[in-house]
Amino acid sequence: MNYTMLCDYYELTMGNGYFLSGQADRITYFDLYFREVPDGGGFAIAAGLEQAISYIENLCFDAEAITFLRDKGGLAPEFLDYLARFRFSGDVYAVPEGTPIFPNEPVMIVRAPAIEAQLVETFLLLTLNHQSLIATKGNRIVRAAQGRVVTEFGSRRAQGADAALNGARAAYIAGCGGTACTLAEMLYGVPASGTMAHSWIQMFDSEYEAFAAYCRTYPQQTVLLADTYNVLKSGVPNAIRAFRDVLDPLGHRPLGIRLDSGDITYLSVAARQMLDDAGYPDCKIVASNALDEYLIRDLIQQGARVDLFGVGERLITAKSNPVFGGVYKLAAVEDADGNIKPKIKVSENVTKITTPHFKKVFRLYDKETGQAEADYICLHSETVDESRPLELFDPDYVWKRKTLTNFTARELLTPVFRQGRRVHSSPPLSEIRDYCRREIETLWPSVTRFENPHNYYVDLSPELWAVKQELLKAQSS
Amino acid sequence: MNYTMLCDYYELTMGNGYFLSGQADRITYFDLYFREVPDGGGFAIAAGLEQAISYIENLCFDAEAITFLRDKGGLAPEFLDYLARFRFSGDVYAVPEGTPIFPNEPVMIVRAPAIEAQLVETFLLLTLNHQSLIATKGNRIVRAAQGRVVTEFGSRRAQGADAALNGARAAYIAGCGGTACTLAEMLYGVPASGTMAHSWIQMFDSEYEAFAAYCRTYPQQTVLLADTYNVLKSGVPNAIRAFRDVLDPLGHRPLGIRLDSGDITYLSVAARQMLDDAGYPDCKIVASNALDEYLIRDLIQQGARVDLFGVGERLITAKSNPVFGGVYKLAAVEDADGNIKPKIKVSENVTKITTPHFKKVFRLYDKETGQAEADYICLHSETVDESRPLELFDPDYVWKRKTLTNFTARELLTPVFRQGRRVHSSPPLSEIRDYCRREIETLWPSVTRFENPHNYYVDLSPELWAVKQELLKAQSS
Repeated sequence: MNYTMLCDYYELTMGNGYFLSGQADRITYFDLYFREVPDGGGFAIAAGLEQAISYIENLCFDAEAITFLRDKGGLAPEFLDYLARFRFSGDVYAVPEGTPIFPNEPVMIVRAPAIEAQLVETFLLLTLNHQSLIATKGNRIVRAAQGRVVTEFGSRRAQGADAALNGARAAYIAGCGGTACTLAEMLYGVPASGTMAHSWIQMFDSEYEAFAAYCRTYPQQTVLLADTYNVLKSGVPNAIRAFRDVLDPLGHRPLGIRLDSGDITYLSVAARQMLDDAGYPDCKIVASNALDEYLIRDLIQQGARVDLFGVGERLITAKSNPVFGGVYKLAAVEDADGNIKPKIKVSENVTKITTPHFKKVFRLYDKETGQAEADYICLHSETVDESRPLELFDPDYVWKRKTLTNFTARELLTPVFRQGRRVHSSPPLSEIRDYCRREIETLWPSVTRFENPHNYYVDLSPELWAVKQELLKAQSS
Repeated sequence: MNYTMLCDYYELTMGNGYFLSGQADRITYFDLYFREVPDGGGFAIAAGLEQAISYIENLCFDAEAITFLRDKGGLAPEFLDYLARFRFSGDVYAVPEGTPIFPNEPVMIVRAPAIEAQLVETFLLLTLNHQSLIATKGNRIVRAAQGRVVTEFGSRRAQGADAALNGARAAYIAGCGGTACTLAEMLYGVPASGTMAHSWIQMFDSEYEAFAAYCRTYPQQTVLLADTYNVLKSGVPNAIRAFRDVLDPLGHRPLGIRLDSGDITYLSVAARQMLDDAGYPDCKIVASNALDEYLIRDLIQQGARVDLFGVGERLITAKSNPVFGGVYKLAAVEDADGNIKPKIKVSENVTKITTPHFKKVFRLYDKETGQAEADYICLHSETVDESRPLELFDPDYVWKRKTLTNFTARELLTPVFRQGRRVHSSPPLSEIRDYCRREIETLWPSVTRFENPHNYYVDLSPELWAVKQELLKAQSS
């Protein structure tokens, strides 16, 4: 799919302006980063890189696009000729998918001629914003389930087809066990599953007949929806009867029953007892119905006997906080001799001030415990010497200092494109998912708690800090 | 685009089950409707029909899909053969896009063999849910702006590419003046516009030079972003200087300046004064920065001098309420002789009880004032006689009654497919937008207010009410 035209029109008006003012070839550096973790959490999870890469690989204005732009008017014919030949020729660095990420550190850096770097702004943002949003939310829900399986169920309430498909992908990266979305398995290998809707029950003359028919059709994968009429008076007894009449003679065990309404704690405890008493202690209980991390945590605390959670609209839209506020800001330009000139954007709102220059990000792990201690942003030309103590300081409250010894430093941003050529191949999705789980385990519990988490340190190197201060002073004078 | 595989997997397991239990050809009726207006509003706006239609027209399982399903396992080979030949053969009725809609009335009815009707559930829901959500939110924002233009700006924060593109479309139906999304103009004709980001300013040695360069490039379409440094000390004075130096000699008038941060009320009032004093009273002021209907209402109340609002993330994600809860429920099946057997789904939650049978919806307008007085749901075989008084009653509180005389009745659901063939051609998007505006004008102000609106009447015919009561009694006995 070619999404070149999914750009904000200002990217074209600016591109045209750069072209006409002789700045077409000027090399720029843009940082993509976010400012606040959704839901007041302590970290987010990077996702969407693979779709961002595929977007860049397919970037080109086809004849239809050029004709449209010509007819629309406003852009110079020479610029349209330039667009017709346009290919992305820049460098891109990005944090691997599944990495825990923190506010105000670049998760992607684009180094490219001004027009190119500007043009990709909208699509890169929307892709990384969307999937990081769902991965971050999905991981909260997965952690709330404390080892129980969470399945993504939300396609029907997703904000469009892409949100359903790539939302299922991001939720899987975040630790969900699978999805209801068939296309997500076909395209991405996210395990898709599903059993029945209430309409299946209604299509038969009775709930029992509907259950028995399902058991006959899927004797090895029987999960019955037990709440069409009355869970405890009708649903569970009919399910048990169907298991006895159809599965037992075939020698198959039922996989589960599903509760989609009502008081899940009460119903699951009672249903568990009925299933156990009937000789089906291995029959799992699945719960769905507008769940999220808070409700799941409450259910578990209240003693609900749920083995698997199906989560729909509150995951696929990240309902409690449906915007991931990634931004894309100019950090530097190169002069004609290739010298990097750092750029800053000031703001009356202090949190909106950018960090200038071409940068690197290191994650510093304690060598003994493996715990992540801080992220360290420095100039791209700098490096971190693991053999020496490293003094960190808060970039806002510089008297807050801490010295790390015995650490390892891992560079977070890896090259993805070099001079327009893809140089990164993504691992299989299941490996990204494993990586995500392992990386979250390196975070302190104080960072991963749902409410009022501890601020993870994201610090600047002294050199980078000095560059920023200098530009701030110059700006305000 | 073929979205056939964007289905919940349970639609395939059920389909396989219907197929194997000899119910493949059984005719079913499904209603698509919603239960609650987002944001506590008094009405929603139907949108997304065109994309739903195009989905149904393109429905087919290609070789890749069949191979995938065969390899996945679990579905009978005969059923896969059936899927390989699958085409939609049913009837679809739907409310035209742009129509104000109310809870618990069908906005789409699908009459089709069970497997077909079940298969389209996910995609129809996600399309109508998404676009209706954005149209409903967009219209709230447009109404808050009281005649000032609202432009949709949110692609970068949209939940995926489809959300950006079709969100722009839905926002336009709802009354937005245009979008920033270039692709939305190319594919749908939604007017796309854009000027500059802060990076444009940063690319030049000074704000003034950046403004002057923009004026030279776009002398007839100059809108300058005035908040990169300091709006009143730098942005507006530099803009005025650039207008004087570049536009005045060319005989062009500036279109506007844009404020993207800070106290919009204060800044717009002061900027207005400066522009007026400088001889640019016709230069408009554009405001953006996390706006929605509440902030816009407050800005206007506080006397902000804003002519055009750019609205991003809070519109494109419907942030305050990002889920439109449309559902898809079985309402009836046909027996072998073609007799319709109504079906009901009861629930412990009374608001989740369905209304059975194959239905029609009439909107009743006062013949004199043209105001919409009520919606009237009846059996499909019924009709409304405009020449006689019509007694309406609340389906829950049946003693609440009202008699309409002197009314016209308009049927809301129009045939969209007949026996799998499309029989509806959608009007151009701008006509849908005009229709939407006109239809909202037929609603009482008590229905359109933002908070605690009056409940619009959605009543059942006595015959339909009786069918529902009978089934409820049968179910609970």
